[in-house]
Amino acid sequence: MQKSDLQSHIIETVRAVKTTNPMAGSITNSVTINFVANAQIAVGGSAAMVYLPDEGEFLAKAGSALYINVGTLMTNSQETMLHTAKVLHELGKQWVLDPVAIGIGQMRSNILMGFKDYKPSIIRGNASEIIALANQWDVAGDGATSQVRGVDSTQSVDEAREAAVALARFTQGAVAVSGEIDLVTDGHFIASSQGGSRFLTQITGSGCSLGGVCAVYACTAPNPFTAALTGINVYNLAGKRAETYAKGPGSFQSSFLDELYKASPEDIANNPFKLEEA
Amino acid sequence: MQKSDLQSHIIETVRAVKTTNPMAGSITNSVTINFVANAQIAVGGSAAMVYLPDEGEFLAKAGSALYINVGTLMTNSQETMLHTAKVLHELGKQWVLDPVAIGIGQMRSNILMGFKDYKPSIIRGNASEIIALANQWDVAGDGATSQVRGVDSTQSVDEAREAAVALARFTQGAVAVSGEIDLVTDGHFIASSQGGSRFLTQITGSGCSLGGVCAVYACTAPNPFTAALTGINVYNLAGKRAETYAKGPGSFQSSFLDELYKASPEDIANNPFKLEEA
Amino acid sequence: MQKSDLQSHIIETVRAVKTTNPMAGSITNSVTINFVANAQIAVGGSAAMVYLPDEGEFLAKAGSALYINVGTLMTNSQETMLHTAKVLHELGKQWVLDPVAIGIGQMRSNILMGFKDYKPSIIRGNASEIIALANQWDVAGDGATSQVRGVDSTQSVDEAREAAVALARFTQGAVAVSGEIDLVTDGHFIASSQGGSRFLTQITGSGCSLGGVCAVYACTAPNPFTAALTGINVYNLAGKRAETYAKGPGSFQSSFLDELYKASPEDIANNPFKLEEA
Repeated sequence: MQKSDLQSHIIETVRAVKTTNPMAGSITNSVTINFVANAQIAVGGSAAMVYLPDEGEFLAKAGSALYINVGTLMTNSQETMLHTAKVLHELGKQWVLDPVAIGIGQMRSNILMGFKDYKPSIIRGNASEIIALANQWDVAGDGATSQVRGVDSTQSVDEAREAAVALARFTQGAVAVSGEIDLVTDGHFIASSQGGSRFLTQITGSGCSLGGVCAVYACTAPNPFTAALTGINVYNLAGKRAETYAKGPGSFQSSFLDELYKASPEDIANNPFKLEEA
Repeated sequence: MQKSDLQSHIIETVRAVKTTNPMAGSITNSVTINFVANAQIAVGGSAAMVYLPDEGEFLAKAGSALYINVGTLMTNSQETMLHTAKVLHELGKQWVLDPVAIGIGQMRSNILMGFKDYKPSIIRGNASEIIALANQWDVAGDGATSQVRGVDSTQSVDEAREAAVALARFTQGAVAVSGEIDLVTDGHFIASSQGGSRFLTQITGSGCSLGGVCAVYACTAPNPFTAALTGINVYNLAGKRAETYAKGPGSFQSSFLDELYKASPEDIANNPFKLEEA
Repeated sequence: MQKSDLQSHIIETVRAVKTTNPMAGSITNSVTINFVANAQIAVGGSAAMVYLPDEGEFLAKAGSALYINVGTLMTNSQETMLHTAKVLHELGKQWVLDPVAIGIGQMRSNILMGFKDYKPSIIRGNASEIIALANQWDVAGDGATSQVRGVDSTQSVDEAREAAVALARFTQGAVAVSGEIDLVTDGHFIASSQGGSRFLTQITGSGCSLGGVCAVYACTAPNPFTAALTGINVYNLAGKRAETYAKGPGSFQSSFLDELYKASPEDIANNPFKLEEA
């Protein structure tokens, strides 16, 4: 894979989203559900959120990709999420998993273990979450020990590199690790994307909404690796630009959505990233 | 009905809201629930959101109007929504229905069919949703076929004209169809309101929050038609004004709430609209 | 207690939050859950929101303080909230109660009555809510009659003074009453804090997010009274500053988060307040 080919794919992926306005449904937490929808719309997609099993199935069938975030679980979340993931897997549809707050509560563990059979096309998380998921799925050999604290990472992206590659090889999809330098891998290549803003860690939902945006790009990208890198790149680009206007996390959030909306296919492809073999 | 009389009614409706701060409760989706509340407060109303059956009944009794949006349904939504609508109907209270995502899932169909008996005072939706509801309730004769896709409309307001008039005649209330030119009808007259902004379709919740605002105006308006047109007019006015400040959908959302707050009764009444017989 | 000592404690509390980034979990309503999380992060804390009983227990054990807001109750809220409060009480952990919408529905009454045994460290509410809770718990003698209307107060902070002192003496914690001049008491002293903005009543969630921020400060403060006053003071400071930039409630909300983020320990301690014996 050449970097220039990848950049061409990114340009085509973004253009196709802006032209076709693809719908990527979501089953996601109530904390950041509004921000996920607004980010998906800002990049050119269409959003639809549900909580019930047959509605998850409906969106799985209706869209080209779906986003599942295990944030604020409700009494029926296990049924809805596992049923929807099963349908997606059977239909060969793409889906994005955000294993947020892995380690909190029994239902979350049950759901994440159940997802192992339905191999998400893209897994997006912070370093601690990616390490914890690789450990829970037992795919990383003697991997690092995860140190999740609530919903925040306490580990660096570098520490999650091995776990990310192992997960991607297992799912044959892509894994994206958010941090100061973001990492995306398909198990064979690793892209390291720069940019972003310190304010992305000073607001809630930057990670969740990135997952939702990756699902939008998955609708038009040639593969999960391209979709995930396109999402990471537009976040790093828009974050960097928004910080120049922001006086704090409140104004940053507004400016960030503005910049997601304005980012051109070429600028997204040209956001600085490094490509190497895994 | 003369246009000038209608404008006088709009002015009185807005003034009464700003003076009396009426509470319009809501049972609404978690995606846009914050935006609904903030929009209701911005125009001068008071917001209260609930999910449980006896709490829906409490708000139905306590307020002059209520807003029901069938967005992100939960396990108990059918019981809560149908019980609350029944209480509203029995008390002769006004309520606003937003049939968002009609066609997705069994519970949504059950709820919307159940609502037919409790005739909402105002129905607000996009063109595809209004056509779909008229078809589900079988009130439109050989109407157009609906093409709902997730939560977005794929049809024009003009295509929904017949369905909107039929629904309004059935409920003896008002129907508002959101689109480039917004349509409001009571089955006898049709008002077509101009303005707004392309950014209203680039954020989530512009439709939902309009429904909530219509419920606020229903608390003081002489009839549902006036309440719905007042809501449509303030949205078109505030949208047009906010776009002049906005750099994108993020800053637009902030400016839009500012302009909802600042809109005067006279400016709302004078937002350009056309009045004709149905 | 000298005012200057209290100000020193406030400075230390704020510094410790900015240095140690403490996690304060929440069980809170879906209307303002995003704003609560963003406010907690803006002042330097870490947020995590849950709905399930074992997840509430997890957060109670993992953090130094927790926030419970009885806003939009769901079918399992009674079980989750009472179980979590029981765990907090048994562990001697601090927690903040926001009795929002007290009086609406049976489950809310059950939960609030159940909380009496688990004595929240901080109770935050508007005047009507504080009076209603003191009456429900029967701790205020011949107190004023509450006039709650939905989620808004119809009474002044002064009217709630006796109820607040009685509640604080009962819980041996602190009570904060939001209004034009905010009152904080531990049953022995009363602090009256000035500042804020009329726009704090023109957006939803200023009260809820203040409760969440008090839980963050409770993680590092020497006592609940200091934690509550620190929260009140930063809200009055940030509100006053944000209003100077705001064109309306939308831009106010962005600016307010910016100012929460930028407020220095010294400025928070120096926000004007009066200290007297109760």
